[in-house]
Parts: sequence; C-alpha cells; structure tokens
Amino acid sequence: MLKGLTSAGLGEFKDINSFIKLASRYGFQAIDTDSEAIKCFIESEGTAGAKLFLQEHHIEIVAMNLPVEWRESEEQFRNDLPKLVEAAKSAFDVGCKACTTYILPSTDYHSAQFMAVATRRLRTCAQILHNYGIRLGLEFVGPHHLRTAWKNPFIWDLQQTLDFIEAIGEKNVGLLIDAYHCYTTNLSNESLTKLSADQIVHVHINDAKDIPVHELLDNDRLFPGEGVIDLSGFLRALKAAGYKGAVSQEVLTATAPTEPIEGLLEKSQKAYTTIFKKAGLE
Amino acid sequence: MLKGLTSAGLGEFKDINSFIKLASRYGFQAIDTDSEAIKCFIESEGTAGAKLFLQEHHIEIVAMNLPVEWRESEEQFRNDLPKLVEAAKSAFDVGCKACTTYILPSTDYHSAQFMAVATRRLRTCAQILHNYGIRLGLEFVGPHHLRTAWKNPFIWDLQQTLDFIEAIGEKNVGLLIDAYHCYTTNLSNESLTKLSADQIVHVHINDAKDIPVHELLDNDRLFPGEGVIDLSGFLRALKAAGYKGAVSQEVLTATAPTEPIEGLLEKSQKAYTTIFKKAGLE
Amino acid sequence: MLKGLTSAGLGEFKDINSFIKLASRYGFQAIDTDSEAIKCFIESEGTAGAKLFLQEHHIEIVAMNLPVEWRESEEQFRNDLPKLVEAAKSAFDVGCKACTTYILPSTDYHSAQFMAVATRRLRTCAQILHNYGIRLGLEFVGPHHLRTAWKNPFIWDLQQTLDFIEAIGEKNVGLLIDAYHCYTTNLSNESLTKLSADQIVHVHINDAKDIPVHELLDNDRLFPGEGVIDLSGFLRALKAAGYKGAVSQEVLTATAPTEPIEGLLEKSQKAYTTIFKKAGLE
Amino acid sequence: MLKGLTSAGLGEFKDINSFIKLASRYGFQAIDTDSEAIKCFIESEGTAGAKLFLQEHHIEIVAMNLPVEWRESEEQFRNDLPKLVEAAKSAFDVGCKACTTYILPSTDYHSAQFMAVATRRLRTCAQILHNYGIRLGLEFVGPHHLRTAWKNPFIWDLQQTLDFIEAIGEKNVGLLIDAYHCYTTNLSNESLTKLSADQIVHVHINDAKDIPVHELLDNDRLFPGEGVIDLSGFLRALKAAGYKGAVSQEVLTATAPTEPIEGLLEKSQKAYTTIFKKAGLE
Repeated sequence: MLKGLTSAGLGEFKDINSFIKLASRYGFQAIDTDSEAIKCFIESEGTAGAKLFLQEHHIEIVAMNLPVEWRESEEQFRNDLPKLVEAAKSAFDVGCKACTTYILPSTDYHSAQFMAVATRRLRTCAQILHNYGIRLGLEFVGPHHLRTAWKNPFIWDLQQTLDFIEAIGEKNVGLLIDAYHCYTTNLSNESLTKLSADQIVHVHINDAKDIPVHELLDNDRLFPGEGVIDLSGFLRALKAAGYKGAVSQEVLTATAPTEPIEGLLEKSQKAYTTIFKKAGLE
Repeated sequence: MLKGLTSAGLGEFKDINSFIKLASRYGFQAIDTDSEAIKCFIESEGTAGAKLFLQEHHIEIVAMNLPVEWRESEEQFRNDLPKLVEAAKSAFDVGCKACTTYILPSTDYHSAQFMAVATRRLRTCAQILHNYGIRLGLEFVGPHHLRTAWKNPFIWDLQQTLDFIEAIGEKNVGLLIDAYHCYTTNLSNESLTKLSADQIVHVHINDAKDIPVHELLDNDRLFPGEGVIDLSGFLRALKAAGYKGAVSQEVLTATAPTEPIEGLLEKSQKAYTTIFKKAGLE
Repeated sequence: MLKGLTSAGLGEFKDINSFIKLASRYGFQAIDTDSEAIKCFIESEGTAGAKLFLQEHHIEIVAMNLPVEWRESEEQFRNDLPKLVEAAKSAFDVGCKACTTYILPSTDYHSAQFMAVATRRLRTCAQILHNYGIRLGLEFVGPHHLRTAWKNPFIWDLQQTLDFIEAIGEKNVGLLIDAYHCYTTNLSNESLTKLSADQIVHVHINDAKDIPVHELLDNDRLFPGEGVIDLSGFLRALKAAGYKGAVSQEVLTATAPTEPIEGLLEKSQKAYTTIFKKAGLE
Repeated sequence: MLKGLTSAGLGEFKDINSFIKLASRYGFQAIDTDSEAIKCFIESEGTAGAKLFLQEHHIEIVAMNLPVEWRESEEQFRNDLPKLVEAAKSAFDVGCKACTTYILPSTDYHSAQFMAVATRRLRTCAQILHNYGIRLGLEFVGPHHLRTAWKNPFIWDLQQTLDFIEAIGEKNVGLLIDAYHCYTTNLSNESLTKLSADQIVHVHINDAKDIPVHELLDNDRLFPGEGVIDLSGFLRALKAAGYKGAVSQEVLTATAPTEPIEGLLEKSQKAYTTIFKKAGLE
C-alpha cells in the first residue's frame, strides 16, 4: 500500500507543487487533490512538466474529488458535466486513476426517489470517467448526527453502499473506505476482509475521540494514532482483501490547525510508520 | 387502441380458453393474463394451436404479470428467475410483448436501500425480457392508505416512477398507466400528453367512487363509467401522447362479483364503446 | 412530419442566422446543423436570443452532427469528448434533441475488433447525450464503392445497423434513415413500415440518378424529385411506422452548386410540397 | 493459485463423483466441469450432499462451460437461455463462481455484424450470471488454422478480446487465459503482467509441440511440461498480475488417451509440482 495524504487537517497549501514537495519530504508516496488543482498544475507546468515534477518527488496523484454536484437540481448536474470531462482528461494526463465522492446520510429529497436520481447521475459520471481509465469511489459517511441533519434518511453503511454500487451497475465504481466511517458504523475488520480487492477504489485513515460512537462528529477527527480506532487491524483487513492501493490521511476538523505543517507531517509520518509496521505492511 | 380485459372484477375463469372466448364474444380485442396461464395454454393447445385459437377469436394476449418476487429476499428473487425465463419464452411464443408489475407505495425495508436493490433486480428482469422482445411496464400505485401500510415510504407517482425507470436504465422499461392511480395521485391528463409513446408499455382503466381522493381504497374500484374518473379525457391524453396499444379493464374489489359474468361483460362493452367514442377513438 | 434542410447541396451560409432565415422564407420548419454553428449562434445571440430567433422564424434545430471522431485512435476519441459535452449543453439550450453520425461501410481496422471498439465509444457518446435529452441517430451508408474504399468491410445496411444499436444497448440510440442509403441497399419501403417510431431518430431525403444501383456514388446525389427514388412511398412507409419527426434534405455533391441559393430553395420547396402531398402528409 | 483439472485429455469419467475423487487423490484442489454434470451431481447427491462431497475431497468446482449457443441463430440463443438460468442456479448452489466460453477465430457470418450480435448475446448471459455471483470468462483461441476455418475472420488475440469485453460492458466479464492460446498468438508473459487481477476469470494450462507456431493445431496439445511453453514464466506473470484463482489443465487431443487415467494424473501431478515450484508458487 502507498502512504498518502489529503490536505485535510494540514491547512492550506500555496499550490499543489508545495503539497507534493512536503508530502515527498515526509516520506509519503501519494496525494489526493481536487480537480481544480490538477488543472492549475497542468496549466502552470505543462503536462510533461507536471508528470516530471511528480516523478522527481516520487509522488502519485491517487485520487481527485468528483467535480459534479449530483445531490441537487438536474440543472446543476447538467451544468457540471463539462467540468467532469475536462477534469477526467487532466487526471488522465497526470496518471490519476480514481475520483471520489461522499454520500450524505440524509437528504431533503424523498429518500427512494433521490436514490433513483442519484443512481442515474453517478452512472453517467462513472461512464465518463471510464473512458479515461478512472474509477469512481463512493464513500459512505458514518457519523450519527448527519443521519438526521436533513429531512429524510439516505444511506450510510457498507452494505447500503454496495447495493448503491450494484444499482449504478458500472464496472469502474467501488468504495472509498474511510476508517472513521467504518468505526462510526461499527463495521468490523472481519467484514472488510470479505470484500474483493476490485471493490475498493481508495482508502482514508484518521482517528476518533474516546467518546460514545453515536456522539462522534464528522468534522472532529483526530490524526491517525491519536484516538481509539484500531488502524493496524483496519489495514490488515484491507490487505487480506487484496487491497494494494493508497491509504490517505484525511483529518476533518472544525477549525484550521494551529501547529506548523512540518510538525503535523512529522507526526503523521511517524504514525504511518508505526501503523504500517504493526499491520505487517512494509 | 385495443379494447382489453384483465380478469379482475370478473370472477374466476375455468381456463384461459374460456376467458378468450368471452372477451371475444363481447367485442374485446385483447387480454392481460398471468404467466402460469400462458404456460398451461401452450401445454394444452401446443404453440401453434394456442396461436390459432387466439387468431380465430381475434384476441391478442397483450400483457402478462412479472412472475418474480422482486420485493423480498435475494434468495427468493434468485429462485424466481428461472420462472421468468420460461415465462418470457412462452409469452414470446404466443406473441405477448409486455410484462407488468406494480410498485407498492411503502416498504418494510429501508427506503433508499430498497430502491437500490429494486433497481438492480428489475434491471435483470428487463434484460431477460428484452431477449424475447418483451417490454416491462412498471405501475405506480396511488391509493393513499398504501403509503403507510408498511414502515417506510417508497414511491407512488408518475415522476418518481420515471426516475425509477431511468435508474434501471434499460430501453425496454416503461410505464403501466392505470386510471385509478392517476386519479388518486391527482395526475392531470395534460401531464399524460407530455409523455412519449415509447414510455408507455400498457394501460389499465377502471373507475373511482365519489368520495375524497385520500379515502379511496386500492381494492374498492368501480367498473369504467360507474364512477367519477374522466376516462375519455384520460384516453384522449394517451392518444395525444401517441399511445396505440391496449387499454385493459382492471376492477380490483374486496369480494368476488355476484353478478353473472355475461352481465358484467355486457356492461363493460357498453362502457368501452361510450368512452372510446367520446375520446375520439374508433 | 417537419420539412427540414441541411446545408448540403445549397452552398455555404454566412452564418446560422442566414440559414434559418432562408429556411423559414421558403417554407421549411427545421434545420440540421453542426455543433460548432450552434455554439457560435449562442455566443452571438445569447441563449434567450437564439431561442427567440428560432421562434420568430418558426424553425427548429432538429439535429446536429456528432462532434467526436469515433473511427480513429483512442487518443483522438478521448480528446474529443469534452467537445461533445459542450455541444450537448448548447444543443439542449436551443432545444435540439438529436445528434447524428454516419457509419462508413469499410475500415482500415480489423472489422470485428473495430465493431467492438465502436460499440463502446458510441455507447459513451449516447450516455453523455442522454443527460441532455438528446438522442443519437446512426446513419448506415449504402453506396457500393465505399464498401471497398478501405481495407476491410464494416456495415452498411438496416439490419446490421439495428444489430449495432442493440450492441450499444442505450435507449437513446436509433436510426438516421436516408433515402439514398435505403435505395442503394435495395431496402423496401415495406421493411421501413416494420420499424417502430422510437427506432427512428431522424430522416434525410435526396434523390438518385437513373443508373445501376451499384454505380451510384455517395457524393453524386440529386435534389428530391429529380431522380428515381420513390420518395412519397418512402415517407408513407415512415408515417406507417409512426414517425413524426423532421425530414431534412441532404444533397451531397462533388462540387458546390452554381445556381443561386434562392432558386435551389424554391425548387426544394416545390418538391417537398409535391412529395408530402402524394405521401398523404399535410 | 489452485491446482485444477478439466477432463480434457484424461478420457471419460463415469460421473463427476469419480472425477472429484481422482482429482483429490492426485493432489488437485479444483475442477472445471460442464453445467449438465453439476445438475446431475445435485440431482444424485442433493445440494447439501454435493457440497459435503466436495468439502470431504477438498475440491472446488471453479468453472463450468456456458450452456448457451451464442454463435448461431437467434432462435437457438433464445431457446438456450432457460438452460443458462438453471445452470447458474445449480452452480451457485455448489459454490462455482465462473462460467467460461471460447471464441472461434473465424465465422461464417459477416465479421462486424457478428461482433455486434455476439456482444448483445454475451451481455445477456453475463447479466444473468451476475445475479448468481458468477463471472463470465472469455477465451481467445490462438491456433492459426482456425482463423480461416470459416469464411470471415473474427478475433483471436488478447487485445481484441479485451475490446470485446469492453463492448459487452458488464462488470463480471473477463478473460479465460489459456497457455496454448497465448503461445500461438505470441503473447509475451510481460503483457500478462500488465493485466489487473479482476480482468482474469480463469486460467488453463497445457503444452505445445516443438513445431512452427503457425502449424500448431488446436486439438493437438501436450500435457504440461512435455512441450515448449514456458509454463513457469506464464504462471509467474499471472501471479504478478495478482491472479489468485485456479489453473486448470486442459489437454485437447484428436483421439482419446490410451494410457490409464491414473498414470496420466500422476504425470500431471508431478508436472504441476515442478511448474508451481519454479514459478515461486506454493
């Protein structure tokens, strides 16, 4: 598995180049980013230059966010599709092979109808991405408070997301598995071992406070190793499932970090070393 | 449009042959039936004999029910699929080109997850039927009491069903439009005119008591012309949409009819003549 | 059916506005155009202005060409997809609901493999268009000389194209039926009557010289009524199939016309009147 | 990887029970069989009995043939589909998760059109199998003489088959990779390493005579280790691609073997041990 980073929890980066340099300096091999950043990266460095920059820093861009609002009006969805095709092309050019989006656990729309609409929309996104060799990873979101944040319940656990993926029915759609969401849905590591490698598009890690599970907030996460989640067990389970991709840190917090980024990255580097070792990963 | 009959409201028939004979005698051109009856029909008459019998009586079998339970366990669904393939083959052999199923407005399953599961299952059914040139018609069910008959709301109106059809995503899936369900969901005839002909797989007519719409029960329907639904307007709207298929009477009632069937059919025949004439249909 | 025009055979137009004005002046109700022209139209008039201009001239844009090269390298295909999404959005904005592409009857690629590749690529195009309510019409190309113009035979007749459409498997894909290609593949009008309306996305008419069918060249067509094709029978057959869309004149010729455009349009207007009348169309 | 057997090259077995017993006795862990044999197995042993028999002999049924003729008439295809659903259900009941079919390199049909038809038909098969958790493996067939055995060329190499799989477009379709076909299409082991594990449904091994590649006949194969194919390199390449499934021996020969089966199996067992060891597989 590759050690990866998202910028969440690390504060703002001047540009993707800075992010890549820092990720590289602290021993990471991969980053997640957004499609806009990839576009700017290619505009400033050229396609060849961007690829070279990544190579020189031994960093892969392993995932970008889905630049399409699929949860609101049909008009907005339609208007966003051109962005997706452009993003897919840029991602293809820098070797990024995954695109991810999260599923909010509740919705102001009618639950069943919204599932039908979302199925069609994400299918379209997957179909476009497939032409650029990019997979779409769907992230279920576990924290309990979000299940009632909007009027009607939607979906939030592994099995529901697998059913959603089957409804979409495209071969390049799979899971983005996030340790926080597994923890907040009481998903056992054993359940993860039963997945097949091709069902997993991407993985996020982070940690949870030692409070009752149903009180955990989505944007109140800890850095890996600082909380109560058995992250080694989590990675061991994913390894058993055959997963060989990247594991990116994503620490959503209510406020920006106050520590300097170098300190945060050093901390993360150490945590990754410990967790990977304990999980039997090199 | 063809004048059609289901057996609902008419009582039991000894066999499909009797049904065909009576439908023919009272001026109907089409019947709906179930897949089991088609199977028995072919077993008793042979394929050529069955087709000849239909021809001699100027009757087409225009629709059969979907012989698959797609609303319960995965095991039951899996076990029912062989029946579907057999039924599709038999339907093909007697020229039946539509298969229909109704959607219950509520469910004991989680609404959004059940929509995902139902999308996949009905897609499979549609894919199998497509190989036999058979379309799948989905019937939304309007009566209000059924929206809370099970734990969670599912779907019950036109737009929701169109979204469901898009989620399924197969070209041979469309609507079964039933006058009672249009009436109980306050669907205007103008909305029907905006459909395109290929979105409509089949049509049912019947009538509603003169009580508040939200009090109408699903199995308390009247014969066409005996209630308050503007059936001529309904057919005129479907004609404007380009629909040219069959319109079958379906009168669900709580108890079996007490009148002799000949009387019921004579009544239906007259009602059809009146309604078709008023709708400008020959 | 709507009387439509493509610019083929009429010479160059300054801009789409001129084309619309002339089409309107000579009694036409629809035009085909290319996606680039729609884009310029919207850029110069604004979306609202463009729609108003069309309304004022009682003209609909009924078809645009597919702005994607799906017959060559994967790279070119990938690079063209962003253009398709932009074109689809523009077409949606001016109410254009069909996109068309022609199939060359031979290919330098391996025949069977190219069919597999083309199936996937056109499926992607159809999927994108579907989100904008646009159908994709595939035009088979009949002239015999093109069957050996490249190394290996591909497809050129109705049944092959229907099989191609089934392989693509998307609900919004159908036929562009061109009178010249029907004539050069000896397709009977009776065969056309057996199509269903939803299989036909668009129709082209033109005429053929009185020489042996296998000698007819693709770019040596005549104006409707000047040759040997029974165009009234052709339209009658399409009417019998339920087709209600536009019929656009497309006269491919080796050299630009020398007559002034007004004369050509007057000629076409008269021919359309005659042919439509004889076909029983108003 | 599991050591597997097909019956090809071993002669006739009285029943699947005998095959399972012998496979087990000679150190194999898996067998391929046909759907008819699975059906008889379940009829004679019951589902629970069949599963127990397999468990007691430490044998998995890893693949069955596709019981559908997809290369001939539409009628035959339609008539075979019920068999497929029954076979899928039986396979599901005994834990068999792959179904395989081979692609003949030439056809009496029009090449491109046949590809379109085959794409639709195999898509239907895949869709049915998917509901039972079964994958469909397509086997390209390399021997040169078969490329001209029928009128028109079809497909015979890896890339063509991958394009076919993409045209089919279902997530549960992948490759059956056979060492003989890789050898006769000059496919390098390096090319195999570039596949991803989920593209490979099943693997066959066998060996080739030391004659020019283009002279090798399809039904003139040797037992593993007796010919010139680098089978260890082949398996090492598949391992590098992440393949973890079964590798079944398939020795097609013109005439039935004359040696007693015990001798043949002992020979195969030894060959497997040598090849697996050399490939770094336990």
